Amino acid sequence: MRIGILGTGVVGKTLGSKLAKLGHDVRMGSRKAGGDQAKAWVKEAGSKSSEGTFADAAAHGEMVFNCTSGMGSLEALNAAGARNLEGKVLVDVANPLDFSKGMPPTLSVCNTDSLGEQIQRAFPTAKVVKTLNTVTAAAMVEPSIIPGVHTMFVSGNDAKAKAEVVNFLKTGFGWKEVMDLGDISCARAQEMHLALWVRLYMKLQTPNVNVHVAR
Amino acid sequence: MRIGILGTGVVGKTLGSKLAKLGHDVRMGSRKAGGDQAKAWVKEAGSKSSEGTFADAAAHGEMVFNCTSGMGSLEALNAAGARNLEGKVLVDVANPLDFSKGMPPTLSVCNTDSLGEQIQRAFPTAKVVKTLNTVTAAAMVEPSIIPGVHTMFVSGNDAKAKAEVVNFLKTGFGWKEVMDLGDISCARAQEMHLALWVRLYMKLQTPNVNVHVAR
Repeated sequence: MRIGILGTGVVGKTLGSKLAKLGHDVRMGSRKAGGDQAKAWVKEAGSKSSEGTFADAAAHGEMVFNCTSGMGSLEALNAAGARNLEGKVLVDVANPLDFSKGMPPTLSVCNTDSLGEQIQRAFPTAKVVKTLNTVTAAAMVEPSIIPGVHTMFVSGNDAKAKAEVVNFLKTGFGWKEVMDLGDISCARAQEMHLALWVRLYMKLQTPNVNVHVAR
Repeated sequence: MRIGILGTGVVGKTLGSKLAKLGHDVRMGSRKAGGDQAKAWVKEAGSKSSEGTFADAAAHGEMVFNCTSGMGSLEALNAAGARNLEGKVLVDVANPLDFSKGMPPTLSVCNTDSLGEQIQRAFPTAKVVKTLNTVTAAAMVEPSIIPGVHTMFVSGNDAKAKAEVVNFLKTGFGWKEVMDLGDISCARAQEMHLALWVRLYMKLQTPNVNVHVAR
């Protein structure tokens, strides 16, 4: 599948490399084409991979991953362009974390709204699926680095889009337990989970931490 | 030990009954003494138990549990009186959930502050320990109703107070995994977890749900 990755940070590179390894045709996008990070990634990720602007990557992808930092996601997605996202599955991995006052970060939106919902409202024809934002980048594509069974959450308004993403999570990335929480308003719960995740990270001194839903 | 329970709802009654069963001398407090709920509880909980006003219960307790609904906790604690809480371990079980706009509820305070911190600021000599707010009342005192290993979080500024509460949780209530997150500002994470908890409750159609920290 042709996949667009928005963002050339650790999350974008980790997801991009895994998807390329799985045989997908991945284009990574950033503010400007030809940046050092993106070019180095293309060299590493192999012959099918490419890079360009946010708009290049979004236009390329049949499925698009938002891996930009949450505070800048709406701006990046606007640069990607509504037409390039129209009707597509848009996997939102970002967290609206505000580090401007140090650790722990706060959320720039929460409780009565979420970044996932803001993105869905801004791009109403895109099929936004919120997922993967509750674990560190390395665990997203290799959940077994965290021992035991643990849970990945998914939310979104479009059942078919969620099923497609869940298939990627299970078959492609190796997630054993994926839980569909409901519509995109559940992104509030997924993003607010970062408050606990960051405390666990600080307490346990490792990013390799997740939760398992016991019931 | 003499224990004061503030609040005669399901949480107060469940904790009060369990603590009475464990041999503690429990007094339950509410806005007015002699209410039907409190009197029925005393009858059921046995000879050592008693009831009265918030102030009666707080004065009675060597340890005090705040089991009032979060939106009214500060008012209830003010009625209990700062002098009756002075120097005592104050276990804060409440969640600042606002149900005024229906399900799911929102939090009346979160992200940059928490109810636990508000209580600690309002009663600076009390040793506030936030815990138990992340599970349903029945599971607080009988965690095994939720299958498997799962985690109870604790936070607070006073290490000795936390150790005392952790001992109650483990020895008294049967919690196998208790995690001390840090100081009382971690109450933000514990209270914000309700956003996810409520979604899990809605999705799974059971309140018998908790998370286990995998790492």
